[in-house]
Amino acid sequence: MSELSRRSGVPVPTIKFYLREGLLPPGRATASNQAEYDEEHLRRLRLVRALITLGGLSVAATREVLEAVAEPLGRYETLGVTHYALRSPVATAPDGEGSDGCAAEVERLIERMGWTVTEQSPLRGALAAGLRALREVGAGHDADELAPYAELAAATARVDLDRLAGLEDRIDIAERALALTVLMEPVLATLRRMAQENEAALRYAGEGGDRVGR
Amino acid sequence: MSELSRRSGVPVPTIKFYLREGLLPPGRATASNQAEYDEEHLRRLRLVRALITLGGLSVAATREVLEAVAEPLGRYETLGVTHYALRSPVATAPDGEGSDGCAAEVERLIERMGWTVTEQSPLRGALAAGLRALREVGAGHDADELAPYAELAAATARVDLDRLAGLEDRIDIAERALALTVLMEPVLATLRRMAQENEAALRYAGEGGDRVGR
Repeated sequence: MSELSRRSGVPVPTIKFYLREGLLPPGRATASNQAEYDEEHLRRLRLVRALITLGGLSVAATREVLEAVAEPLGRYETLGVTHYALRSPVATAPDGEGSDGCAAEVERLIERMGWTVTEQSPLRGALAAGLRALREVGAGHDADELAPYAELAAATARVDLDRLAGLEDRIDIAERALALTVLMEPVLATLRRMAQENEAALRYAGEGGDRVGR
Repeated sequence: MSELSRRSGVPVPTIKFYLREGLLPPGRATASNQAEYDEEHLRRLRLVRALITLGGLSVAATREVLEAVAEPLGRYETLGVTHYALRSPVATAPDGEGSDGCAAEVERLIERMGWTVTEQSPLRGALAAGLRALREVGAGHDADELAPYAELAAATARVDLDRLAGLEDRIDIAERALALTVLMEPVLATLRRMAQENEAALRYAGEGGDRVGR
C-alpha cells in the first residue's frame, strides 16, 4: 500500500478510507498484514482521486459512478449512466420563478438541433437554470441565440466521441468518458478564455481608452 | 431598498452588506432615512449577486472586478482586467511535479494556434494544471491532440465577441463580458454533455450490452 501511495501521490490514510468506502477493490492478500495492488488499482485510485478532488463529486456519487461502470451495459448505456450520476455543471440552480420560459427555450433548442436527449435527462433542468441565471443579469439567450453555441458543442462532442472510439473494454470506456467529461470541462473553459483574449487582441488592441496619457 | 429587494430577489440584509462592502454604490438620499435606487443599482445588484452566488467569486474578487470595470480603459484592457480577476476554471491545481512537460505543451499549443496571450496571463498555468489532471488519469493530451478543441474554442470566442460588438458603454461591455464568461461556462458545459448524449445515441444506440435479456 505504501508503494501504491507513493506512485499515486495519494496518502495512505486516504487510500484506507477509499477501501473502507468501497471505492477501491481490496488488494490480493499475500500475508496476514500484506496485500498486493496492481496497475488496475493504481488506475482506479487515480480516477477516484480525480473525481473527488477535481470533479467535486461526493463519495456517494463517486460510488454510484463506479458501480455503473462495473455493470455489463452497452457503450451507449455506459455513457448515459456515468453522465447522469455526475453533478450538474450549473453550480447553484436559482429558484425557478414558476413557468419562466427557460424550460421552453431548452425544448425549442433540442428540437431545432434534432438532438436525442432522454426525457429524464438532468441536463434539461441544468440548461434551463443556466439560462435563467444569464437572463437575470440581462444576458438572456433564447434558442435561436444559443444555436451557434450548440453547433460548436456538437462539433466538440464529435471530437470527444472519436477519442472513445478506439477503446473496447467497457471500464476503459467509462473511465475515459468520465475524464473527458469532468476533467475536460475546465480545460475547455480555459481554452475559451484564452481564445477570447486572443480575439479581443485581434479586434480591439490599439483601441485606446480615454485615460489621460494612454 | 425594499423595492430594490423585491425586484432583484436579493434580501435586504444582503443588499446592506453589499453597500457596506462597497459592491453597490449608495442610493441618492431623499430623506434622513430614505434613499432612491435606480435601474443602474438594480442591474449592478443582479451582477454582484450572480458573480458571488453563481460565479463563486469572493467579495474581494468581486470588488476587484467592479473596480476594474469602473476604470476608463479601452475595450481590450477592460476585457483583460475583468478576465484576470476571475477565478480560474481549474478548481484545484494539483501540485506540480517539477518540469512535467504540461507547461511546455501549453506554449506549443499557443504557438501552433498563433494566439496572442500575455506572458502574465493566469490562463497558462490554469491550462497546464488541467492537462496535468487529465494525464494523471491516463487521459493526457498533448498540443496536437488539444488543437481540435482549441479550434472550436476559437470559434466559440468569435461568437462571444460578436455578442459584445454592439455595445458601446464600457460598463455594459464589462458586465456583459463577465456574464458571458462566468455564467456561460456551465451553459456550454451542459450543451456539450447534451451533444455527447445525442452523439452517443447516434453512434451506439442499439449496440447491446452483454447483460442477459438486453
